[in-house]
Amino acid sequence: MAENLRVAVIGAGRMGADHIQRLHTRIHGAEVAAVIDIDLDRAKAAIADIPGAQAFATAAEAYRAGGINAAVIATPGFLHEQALLEALELDLPILCEKPLTPDAASAWKVVEAEQKLGRKRIQVGFMRRFDAEYAQLGGLVRSGELGELLMLHCRHRNPDTPAGFTNEMLINDSVVHEFDVIRYLTGEEITSVQVRLGKASSKAPAGQHDPQHVLIQTESGVLADVEIFVNAQFGYEVATQAAFEDGIVDIGRDAGAYLRRAGRWGGAVTPSFIERFGAAYDVEVQTWVDAALRGEIGGPSAWDGYATAACCEAGVEAQKTGEKVAVALNEKPALYGAAAGGAAQ
Amino acid sequence: MAENLRVAVIGAGRMGADHIQRLHTRIHGAEVAAVIDIDLDRAKAAIADIPGAQAFATAAEAYRAGGINAAVIATPGFLHEQALLEALELDLPILCEKPLTPDAASAWKVVEAEQKLGRKRIQVGFMRRFDAEYAQLGGLVRSGELGELLMLHCRHRNPDTPAGFTNEMLINDSVVHEFDVIRYLTGEEITSVQVRLGKASSKAPAGQHDPQHVLIQTESGVLADVEIFVNAQFGYEVATQAAFEDGIVDIGRDAGAYLRRAGRWGGAVTPSFIERFGAAYDVEVQTWVDAALRGEIGGPSAWDGYATAACCEAGVEAQKTGEKVAVALNEKPALYGAAAGGAAQ
Amino acid sequence: MAENLRVAVIGAGRMGADHIQRLHTRIHGAEVAAVIDIDLDRAKAAIADIPGAQAFATAAEAYRAGGINAAVIATPGFLHEQALLEALELDLPILCEKPLTPDAASAWKVVEAEQKLGRKRIQVGFMRRFDAEYAQLGGLVRSGELGELLMLHCRHRNPDTPAGFTNEMLINDSVVHEFDVIRYLTGEEITSVQVRLGKASSKAPAGQHDPQHVLIQTESGVLADVEIFVNAQFGYEVATQAAFEDGIVDIGRDAGAYLRRAGRWGGAVTPSFIERFGAAYDVEVQTWVDAALRGEIGGPSAWDGYATAACCEAGVEAQKTGEKVAVALNEKPALYGAAAGGAAQ
Amino acid sequence: MAENLRVAVIGAGRMGADHIQRLHTRIHGAEVAAVIDIDLDRAKAAIADIPGAQAFATAAEAYRAGGINAAVIATPGFLHEQALLEALELDLPILCEKPLTPDAASAWKVVEAEQKLGRKRIQVGFMRRFDAEYAQLGGLVRSGELGELLMLHCRHRNPDTPAGFTNEMLINDSVVHEFDVIRYLTGEEITSVQVRLGKASSKAPAGQHDPQHVLIQTESGVLADVEIFVNAQFGYEVATQAAFEDGIVDIGRDAGAYLRRAGRWGGAVTPSFIERFGAAYDVEVQTWVDAALRGEIGGPSAWDGYATAACCEAGVEAQKTGEKVAVALNEKPALYGAAAGGAAQ
Repeated sequence: MAENLRVAVIGAGRMGADHIQRLHTRIHGAEVAAVIDIDLDRAKAAIADIPGAQAFATAAEAYRAGGINAAVIATPGFLHEQALLEALELDLPILCEKPLTPDAASAWKVVEAEQKLGRKRIQVGFMRRFDAEYAQLGGLVRSGELGELLMLHCRHRNPDTPAGFTNEMLINDSVVHEFDVIRYLTGEEITSVQVRLGKASSKAPAGQHDPQHVLIQTESGVLADVEIFVNAQFGYEVATQAAFEDGIVDIGRDAGAYLRRAGRWGGAVTPSFIERFGAAYDVEVQTWVDAALRGEIGGPSAWDGYATAACCEAGVEAQKTGEKVAVALNEKPALYGAAAGGAAQ
Repeated sequence: MAENLRVAVIGAGRMGADHIQRLHTRIHGAEVAAVIDIDLDRAKAAIADIPGAQAFATAAEAYRAGGINAAVIATPGFLHEQALLEALELDLPILCEKPLTPDAASAWKVVEAEQKLGRKRIQVGFMRRFDAEYAQLGGLVRSGELGELLMLHCRHRNPDTPAGFTNEMLINDSVVHEFDVIRYLTGEEITSVQVRLGKASSKAPAGQHDPQHVLIQTESGVLADVEIFVNAQFGYEVATQAAFEDGIVDIGRDAGAYLRRAGRWGGAVTPSFIERFGAAYDVEVQTWVDAALRGEIGGPSAWDGYATAACCEAGVEAQKTGEKVAVALNEKPALYGAAAGGAAQ
Repeated sequence: MAENLRVAVIGAGRMGADHIQRLHTRIHGAEVAAVIDIDLDRAKAAIADIPGAQAFATAAEAYRAGGINAAVIATPGFLHEQALLEALELDLPILCEKPLTPDAASAWKVVEAEQKLGRKRIQVGFMRRFDAEYAQLGGLVRSGELGELLMLHCRHRNPDTPAGFTNEMLINDSVVHEFDVIRYLTGEEITSVQVRLGKASSKAPAGQHDPQHVLIQTESGVLADVEIFVNAQFGYEVATQAAFEDGIVDIGRDAGAYLRRAGRWGGAVTPSFIERFGAAYDVEVQTWVDAALRGEIGGPSAWDGYATAACCEAGVEAQKTGEKVAVALNEKPALYGAAAGGAAQ
Repeated sequence: MAENLRVAVIGAGRMGADHIQRLHTRIHGAEVAAVIDIDLDRAKAAIADIPGAQAFATAAEAYRAGGINAAVIATPGFLHEQALLEALELDLPILCEKPLTPDAASAWKVVEAEQKLGRKRIQVGFMRRFDAEYAQLGGLVRSGELGELLMLHCRHRNPDTPAGFTNEMLINDSVVHEFDVIRYLTGEEITSVQVRLGKASSKAPAGQHDPQHVLIQTESGVLADVEIFVNAQFGYEVATQAAFEDGIVDIGRDAGAYLRRAGRWGGAVTPSFIERFGAAYDVEVQTWVDAALRGEIGGPSAWDGYATAACCEAGVEAQKTGEKVAVALNEKPALYGAAAGGAAQ
């Protein structure tokens, strides 16, 4: 049997802790070798039940201690650039939570650093590509069996937001998933973004205008609207309807047991992204491990991270104006192939 | 324009009052000429907003007063026989609420009386045949496009029962509809009935064992199970699943607006048979009026009333034994054609 | 019993012929007295089975012949203005198929003419207000039980279009229904319309850009997007999803029998607006008849016709620019009450 | 980290090969140490990609070779007794595919052998207990929030059957799952089984009467009907509807993307038990491994295997008579606790 991936997980917050447990209990071919968190106690707590793992305050210390051959980055976005460049310097296979970095300029620096290595080392954590229904919809687009894809209608609803969730984070943390998914489904780059604010919910905290209406267009003209509504109260929902020339497809419908009682039929709404996309995270990480053990990188690339960062920049500007804002991209390096979105794996 | 049907409605209780309003406000080609109820005040109340209609305590008086050329019978079942024979004597087109009569022997007398007239004069109120989804399922059976029909699974659930609803009435008033529908869908007579009582709901009133499990077989061997559950609390539901050689069909699914709120997805359950079958009653009565104006009778016949009365007798006996009870029928008079269930119209 | 409405139906094309049959066979309290069509043979054909009705080439002749006390206008839209003014002159209760007139200026003339009469005489044929699910959604908005309505997502899909259906007709004949429905649901006027063309289907005939994306805003800021797709091939669909502060509501979902066969689960798509809105048309016309017999007019008013005509003008301009176009309205006459959309009846 | 479970998989047919791949690629804490098949080439093929695993023609040889501390039994049912007794002799933790053994007498011998060891060593492969929706339904029963469970309606449909699938196998291989699930959901033993044959599909091979109607009763009187239909053509479906005092619950509904095209709405039917229960198998095996590493056994026990074997015997007899056949059980040994079905884990 090949040697396991010995992973340094950088960041032991909510997402990091999740990945640590995933690697430890559900993923084959990898083990948690080190956990890095500036809050060293949090790092130690995260490895309490993992014999053989070590805790560090910085990635540099962990790398010096040795025995690491892969990195998962799960810090807040503004720390990604440094963590990525350090890991690239060691030529490690990297799984980086989205966003790649918070803006297009810094994302481009990462793309350039990876270019120098001459091969892909970074997979970005757009886990929806690993969700069975998104994959099914992507397959329908590529098969052409319903004709051309013409329009997408996306819903992205959270029950509420954590403290400190700003107006820009509706774009940078939430719609960023739709940016990637639209690129993945159409296989095209996004050319413009419009944001209209509309009537606001009284349930939104001060400083947030919620919901917002985002209208996105791709190279061939496909229009995608997004309702981003992060204080929707009732539950969590991520759903997409696709209009093709010869049919309509819905994914993300409610599922589970069906009850009739006290005058009502129906079932339980998904409470959070954990239940909705837990399986997709598992597939995402296993895919990354399997490729890394073969010396490869698949899934969403640093280019995908850069291109969505550019969309986010345009989206935040469009929030202010209500107008259509063009998305400008550098030329795509050959390393990242021809298609915009590409396949999940 | 042809002369309107001038209808005597016999019985001004819940069902009678319903038919009076239906004839007065939604049905073309008919008007309420007389309302008969032994409680004369109730009869008068029922025609308060109908100029030209008259109230009587007995059908005989109404017929003597003249001007009547059709009858709708909506009294309690034990009064049907007399009302039917009186109206047949006058050769009137009759719409008789189910059951034709409460037992097979009296139903057979009605069949014999109609036989003497040499043409069909009675339509029995099995309104489900006029429901769009039952009609669609019946069409699928007759088309053969899914192969042979093999099994039926029927659910008949009421939120609760009115005072005085006895254990026998689960068969005679509720399952009687399934007896007719199974005959209609298969085009065959029912050959046996088994009733198993099982675990009872604590919500059922004293004297009622609810729910019950009824297992019915037809001439060619088709098995149909019925859950009859008349204190099901949550709402009203009549649904059927049909297993064919090449596919499965469900009718009677929940409909209407779809809500997501407070952790739940779903909609409102149908509260009663009024909402579920209101449109079917309208179609039923209009069909009867249209045929009567042409001098004809369509829809479920006196034979259907007799055959289901025989099934009910077997069902009530089966309630007592838990065993399979055979259904015995007299030979079918030529007047009623070949098929058991026949088309709705 | 009150005297029946004796209706002149002006226009014996598809919609007119439909209304003639509806009035003749399903509507109480009204009869077809005259059918007017410039193609006199078509008018005669439409009354072939209606004893007592007369055919005319012009409304003026019909009115001179006498015996008419109500008018249904079902000619092409560009002929509505004259037909409305003639009928208003006679103070007739009018049911006018949508649009009231094809542009805001001519619609305003009709509003002014009705003003002079000092009471409402015109109901406009926006039948969706009489559809049970739209009414249910409107009730949910007004009840406030889900908090404020924030966004609407509308789908309006036809399998294909008749010859001669122009690009402007996507707005004037199709989206006009959404304009009315959005006003009805929100109880507010529309303040702006944006139209984005996006990627076009190869199934659209020359001269049509199909589908189109329409983004509408109302006085309080509610945003409504519309996918108008009139060559959608698969079938007919009119559906709306409403996002409230405390929940989400969908109407217009697929219904009917549920089949599983040959690897597929599902049912039959609605083939056309006839099946989808047939019952709503019946309710609409019956509501108009009932009110007219009481000397009143309910339902969508001439103001609703004028306001939607102004939306259509803005929409057609927005088709050309892709920009947000403001909708300008005259001051609302007191005759039409306070709310924009108002109740259906 | 604790030592891995080193598993001998006995039987390398369809189910065995499945478990081998599952243990090798998706299950934590276990590895395939040996594969035993009387067809040694098949055993060798099954371990081709598993370094360190060895192939044997008999379990005895494998045990003699050493290094094995757990057994998975996936041979045909008639070979289970011997394989179980051999593994019990070595005190190994065992996961035995259903049925435990093909008849109640041999199953009881296994129960007695386990009794002598004084602790549970056998988990039986009733994987439905590990399916999320069955678990949810079981939770609803135990919570009592819908009142008492009164009736169950079960559907078990396969598209077709492999060659050699006999009439008795409809009970022994298919309905056996419902026997276990009904015991699990009610927490009670089954007291009687009735089988009615009804109308047969022309798609069934010679010697099979398909579908069949099975009516089952439990200690407290709960009635459960099963449509077992193993040549249902359209696809695979396992679904249950539960009627409670205060509501109705459905599990096993169709899922996945929702398409509208060419006049049809709907989605793809599940093609086989692999897609329907693949995740449940993973959970089942992981649960067994986790318990075995702690020296325990959870999940369905040898008693469950014995009790369902007794139900199968009654079922096969009931196939012949069409009558209700009582299920007789030996007294339950204390080792297996009080409840009949018990929790999944």
